[in-house]
Amino acid sequence: MTSSGSVGVVSPQTAHFAEPLTLKSGAVLPAYDLVYETYGTLNAQRDNAVLVCHALSGSHHVAGTYAGKPKSVGWWDNLVGPGKPLDTTKFFVIGVNNLGGCYGSTGPTSINPATGKPWGADFPFVTVEDWVAAQARLADLLGIERFAAVVGGSLGGMQALEWTLAFPDRVRHAAIIAAAPKLSAQNIAFNEVARQAIKSDPQFHGGHYYEHGVVPVNGLKLARMVGHITYLSDDAMGEKFGRKLRHGEHKYHWDVEFEIESYLRYQGDKFAGYFDANTYLLATKALDYFDPAFDYDGDLAAALARAKADFFVASFSTDWRFSPERSRELVFALIQNGLKVSYAELESTAGHDSFLLDDPQYHAVLRAWFDGIGV
Amino acid sequence: MTSSGSVGVVSPQTAHFAEPLTLKSGAVLPAYDLVYETYGTLNAQRDNAVLVCHALSGSHHVAGTYAGKPKSVGWWDNLVGPGKPLDTTKFFVIGVNNLGGCYGSTGPTSINPATGKPWGADFPFVTVEDWVAAQARLADLLGIERFAAVVGGSLGGMQALEWTLAFPDRVRHAAIIAAAPKLSAQNIAFNEVARQAIKSDPQFHGGHYYEHGVVPVNGLKLARMVGHITYLSDDAMGEKFGRKLRHGEHKYHWDVEFEIESYLRYQGDKFAGYFDANTYLLATKALDYFDPAFDYDGDLAAALARAKADFFVASFSTDWRFSPERSRELVFALIQNGLKVSYAELESTAGHDSFLLDDPQYHAVLRAWFDGIGV
Repeated sequence: MTSSGSVGVVSPQTAHFAEPLTLKSGAVLPAYDLVYETYGTLNAQRDNAVLVCHALSGSHHVAGTYAGKPKSVGWWDNLVGPGKPLDTTKFFVIGVNNLGGCYGSTGPTSINPATGKPWGADFPFVTVEDWVAAQARLADLLGIERFAAVVGGSLGGMQALEWTLAFPDRVRHAAIIAAAPKLSAQNIAFNEVARQAIKSDPQFHGGHYYEHGVVPVNGLKLARMVGHITYLSDDAMGEKFGRKLRHGEHKYHWDVEFEIESYLRYQGDKFAGYFDANTYLLATKALDYFDPAFDYDGDLAAALARAKADFFVASFSTDWRFSPERSRELVFALIQNGLKVSYAELESTAGHDSFLLDDPQYHAVLRAWFDGIGV
Repeated sequence: MTSSGSVGVVSPQTAHFAEPLTLKSGAVLPAYDLVYETYGTLNAQRDNAVLVCHALSGSHHVAGTYAGKPKSVGWWDNLVGPGKPLDTTKFFVIGVNNLGGCYGSTGPTSINPATGKPWGADFPFVTVEDWVAAQARLADLLGIERFAAVVGGSLGGMQALEWTLAFPDRVRHAAIIAAAPKLSAQNIAFNEVARQAIKSDPQFHGGHYYEHGVVPVNGLKLARMVGHITYLSDDAMGEKFGRKLRHGEHKYHWDVEFEIESYLRYQGDKFAGYFDANTYLLATKALDYFDPAFDYDGDLAAALARAKADFFVASFSTDWRFSPERSRELVFALIQNGLKVSYAELESTAGHDSFLLDDPQYHAVLRAWFDGIGV
């Protein structure tokens, strides 16, 4: 255990899967790689593994840093580490970059064996169900029959939920944080704006921009700007930026007048500099499609009847992307099935992004929940 | 009075103003036209005039239809007409297209006398204050010293408020509906996304697209799509579209899967087909800049001290663009000044757009308020 409670320097690994994967859409992925990281040690009983599922723009790099890159801190480093709520002295924690991703797992930037060129827009649609199926194969490879827990926030929470449905006997506990059992029309609407922004960028070239040596920077920037608005609460934006002026007075120009404009442009530019547009498109579609109640005439309780895990559900008061009401809907359906559910509705000013922050109350309840998991 | 209660066939008029107008930014508009419509008759005392101010994408065409175009119904036709809440048998109602507009008043599509070419992006910034100043000159021209009422929803409501501050003695009553005394950071953020969408469209050509014979269709479409999400409530979208599928099943394609996608694309395309992108940009900036409390260290009550009108303020429960809280802030500041304020916080599922609809309760309170105005 380092003094900082960090898992320290980590490095990703790659697992190759030669067996074809039939996706929910019916398309078949002939072979694929998954990039993953692990923290802690798998115990002799192999019953202390925790899978951390990432959200829209996340990755397998959950905790720690890469050698020589002290700023390359994992996205949930405040949660995962020795002595942290998800304690790596107790648990063997795994982060996986999902299929269709842009951090090393097979995705649109990978070579399509049929053409010898990057998949680009021809990469098949991937769903939450497909991600979970691929993660299960990685679990097989690592010799993990049953996870102590599967954990995720936002789109990651949907994967945790799906694990309890696709593999009820392979998940003892599931934590579903700042998520929803399905997107609302408004959620889909924001995704659609993001997609149209990317697809209408002339540099998108129908999704085959790699071959043109360009990137649909403007579209991806706009998509991220819209996303950011939905990640932050109105309150948080008000507190952080309000109507703060860049120059202390109205300049009557098209450059930045208000600091919020500068923040959004910066976030958009930064994101467009490292994230892949096709991956972004695929991830928004995976979000849209997820709806476990779809095959049950919308009856969520019926859809969840096969789950066996013990659940932890958390929501945040100012999250308007996936409001507490959406978590309550999930909790209610789980309870209807006689499942054990701990539900924390947390006060927070930070909106949807709260799930990534180390709010003391939030981390305290998560810590207590992880402490209660026997290994 | 027609049987339908419509003002019937109307036609716009144009007023030319040769006297330069110094704008809030310091820029000077050498001369300009305002296009307007009137309904009803100005009485002998000239005390029954009501000015209706339009919102972001509205126009002077408030009520009635144009000859031979039965579908060209004014945007607030359900409110304005003989026997309607804003009764044209009692009032002389005026609608004006604002400066910078694209419906005939001088704006970016007009010829810049300095260059002989359309103003385009060189059209000066216009503010709510400038619009009101120009409207006052039109009132002078029409021989209206004092309005019985100035009325508006959303950005139009901001103009009604500004009237009571810029010309306290020229407004007896003001109706400020679904508005706010200033934009929040989140409001500005959505405007900024819309602007970046338009400005990053290669067809924008720095705002001089007219000369290139093109229109930044994609950018304007995206701007409108984002706007539409903020005009509708999450509830309204849920009720109207929910997760309704175009094909009854997931097709796993980039075409429309969910009806909400189709609706947004349609609204975006339609808007991009008739609205001017430069006007849209200017209107979002006018929204951003409006803040009567700015010169009063943010003290809204101090800013409103010079108002003398009787006020009607209305908000809608599901309006998350300008929530009831924002109207209450305004009401509170007006009451602090000892002004007469009628405030209606109305139940509605339709979000911000509620102000345009003919909800019976909403129209009943508006009718009662207009009935109480002596002429």
